[in-house]
Amino acid sequence: MSNFGDGIPFKNVEFALRIALVKAEMEKREIDALLISEPSNICYLTGYEAWSFYVFQMLVVHRDLEEPVWIGRFMDAVSVRRMTYLSDQSIRPYSDDYVQSVDRDPVDFLVSQLREFCPTLRAVGVETGSFYYSGHTHVRLLSLLPDVQLKDAELLINWIRIRKSSVEIEVMREAGVIADAMIKEAVDAAEPSMRECDLAAVLYRRMISGTSEIGGVYTSSAPYVLSGTRAGEPHAPWSDRIIGTDVPVNIETAGCRRRYHSPISRTIFLGKPSDAYLKLADAVTEGIEAALEVVKPGVTCAEVEFAWRETVARHGFHKEARLGYSIGIGFPPTWGERTASLRASDLTVIDEGMAFHMMPGLWLDNTGVTITQSFVVTARGREDLTKFPRKLIVK
Amino acid sequence: MSNFGDGIPFKNVEFALRIALVKAEMEKREIDALLISEPSNICYLTGYEAWSFYVFQMLVVHRDLEEPVWIGRFMDAVSVRRMTYLSDQSIRPYSDDYVQSVDRDPVDFLVSQLREFCPTLRAVGVETGSFYYSGHTHVRLLSLLPDVQLKDAELLINWIRIRKSSVEIEVMREAGVIADAMIKEAVDAAEPSMRECDLAAVLYRRMISGTSEIGGVYTSSAPYVLSGTRAGEPHAPWSDRIIGTDVPVNIETAGCRRRYHSPISRTIFLGKPSDAYLKLADAVTEGIEAALEVVKPGVTCAEVEFAWRETVARHGFHKEARLGYSIGIGFPPTWGERTASLRASDLTVIDEGMAFHMMPGLWLDNTGVTITQSFVVTARGREDLTKFPRKLIVK
Repeated sequence: MSNFGDGIPFKNVEFALRIALVKAEMEKREIDALLISEPSNICYLTGYEAWSFYVFQMLVVHRDLEEPVWIGRFMDAVSVRRMTYLSDQSIRPYSDDYVQSVDRDPVDFLVSQLREFCPTLRAVGVETGSFYYSGHTHVRLLSLLPDVQLKDAELLINWIRIRKSSVEIEVMREAGVIADAMIKEAVDAAEPSMRECDLAAVLYRRMISGTSEIGGVYTSSAPYVLSGTRAGEPHAPWSDRIIGTDVPVNIETAGCRRRYHSPISRTIFLGKPSDAYLKLADAVTEGIEAALEVVKPGVTCAEVEFAWRETVARHGFHKEARLGYSIGIGFPPTWGERTASLRASDLTVIDEGMAFHMMPGLWLDNTGVTITQSFVVTARGREDLTKFPRKLIVK
Repeated sequence: MSNFGDGIPFKNVEFALRIALVKAEMEKREIDALLISEPSNICYLTGYEAWSFYVFQMLVVHRDLEEPVWIGRFMDAVSVRRMTYLSDQSIRPYSDDYVQSVDRDPVDFLVSQLREFCPTLRAVGVETGSFYYSGHTHVRLLSLLPDVQLKDAELLINWIRIRKSSVEIEVMREAGVIADAMIKEAVDAAEPSMRECDLAAVLYRRMISGTSEIGGVYTSSAPYVLSGTRAGEPHAPWSDRIIGTDVPVNIETAGCRRRYHSPISRTIFLGKPSDAYLKLADAVTEGIEAALEVVKPGVTCAEVEFAWRETVARHGFHKEARLGYSIGIGFPPTWGERTASLRASDLTVIDEGMAFHMMPGLWLDNTGVTITQSFVVTARGREDLTKFPRKLIVK
């Protein structure tokens, strides 16, 4: 792990192992070449983490080639050379006139390159549901590769990276340290006379500065900071409004290091909560402890969620949304891995090395409380990635 | 314009006009219903700006229906009610078990809703190249709508929103005020002994706090803060490294208000630049002034770029990347509108109300300088959206 938050993040052997896992899965599915559009999957296999995904880019893993091949905009090749182990022949940039252009299509460039460097090209895997694999790209590939079978490889890599290695867990611990520092600073700073945006600014400053040992970086989603009656709006941006007195402030955010996230949510209640509100908070705390207690290798996601569901039901509450999701590397627009969810219908068996953000929260008509926990699954249970106490914060 | 940075951002008449423009274009292209996946286009037509685009959502405009219809996750309906003028019948949420699920597909929900509320459904427009319109969505729509013609409506709305109304320009001015404050604060704070991440934190704090009158909000892209030899990596994240002495720090960022962006880039040189570096900076300043001088209604994007190209060529320099792009509403991963670019091959005629980020920069082997300007085109020329002096900052 680099001490500077830049350069190649892991040793080559770590990447070699990841690529071997992906190639084994490709073999099983009879895929010659895998086209990887999801930035988190590209990062997983190469360490590449520049913000170049707003233009067309693709990483190609071929069964018969040792290294993956990166296809992207010419100017971003500089960062690929610096951040990854790829040799020059595996870095294939297109010129700037392909960018958001009416007369040139970077998919055409990709295909001409594939024809050149791929030893065989019978079956090609594509991540059909990725944010960075558009309908246009799919249609264009179909038309340019009439002799090739396109196979749906959606989430192929995501399901591999659900199990974290020890070096990945180490980076997630660092992200957790930043997340804790963010919440601590927000609790210290929060005041009724403050605007929501000023409290959000406190969170951001710590997210980016990190600590004196561990610098921070932007998270894949913006923090949520919503106060008063707005606490019921899950994904709205903060506003310029003054927070006020006797209101909850719901904060959902994460610390991030080398694109690995450890999320955390807490409610800070400024003033005196009503008895009804305290009962809501009690249900959430009791529910999260019950659900965390169940976590260990061998249980299903559904079993974990059931412990929560049963506990809050005894208090007369119910939460429709899932209780959590798998976490790890994240790029905008999400830090979730889009694989396992903690919900009744998900029978994924929890295994050592998996990491989740368990996010219990309960909402009444115009208010809500949320207290969450990121953790990694260990041989006998779990290790919490953030250490901030799991309770309603009253100030 | 709301004073609080939340609620419905504009009067209903503003949205009515936008929808009329979209419907006129649909009429021309014989499209009955337009499926809008790009968050910036959804925001343009409704004011909706929550971070819910990481799950499936779609806005549907039908020629025969007055209001657009929003399809999305149940919990986000709360924000739709609060941020938009849509009536309850136009808000059609799906339940949480459709989210990143193996057994339920929100595209199926969308299609069942379309069948229900659309008077006619012969030709449906889709934004094929949008970040939030995946290959999967396209294939699934084709299979569920065999009796319907899917028409490519990529950038249909983007080309309409390239011309800003007076209320939009007013919000972009507010974003510009925040952008200027960010750069001023970064210049004041920058020191050789600082880590890159700590300088990035200064930018973020001001971006989010804004000013005492105008609160800020997250931009669509993270700022870039790259120092020393890293100044040549255009889209890399900052690091934990100490900035050091006699090095340039390249900053690219924006102010944001109600999702409207006014971007700005500046180079802060800490220490004493070499003569060669000062010549590079002179070429950039001379080039940007020459290009800005040309801007007025009636000239093409190519003509603007030519003025830059010709000027820096006299200094012996050349820039491959485009000189700029259209700006306005932005959501991750970009604040560009993906329409007009300031480049030799773009013959778009510049018109009153269009807004651009002109971003000249020149790079040598391991260094670079960037000085940019956001502006809106007026009847006779342009209005600058940021006011920070266009020159190399030496500190």
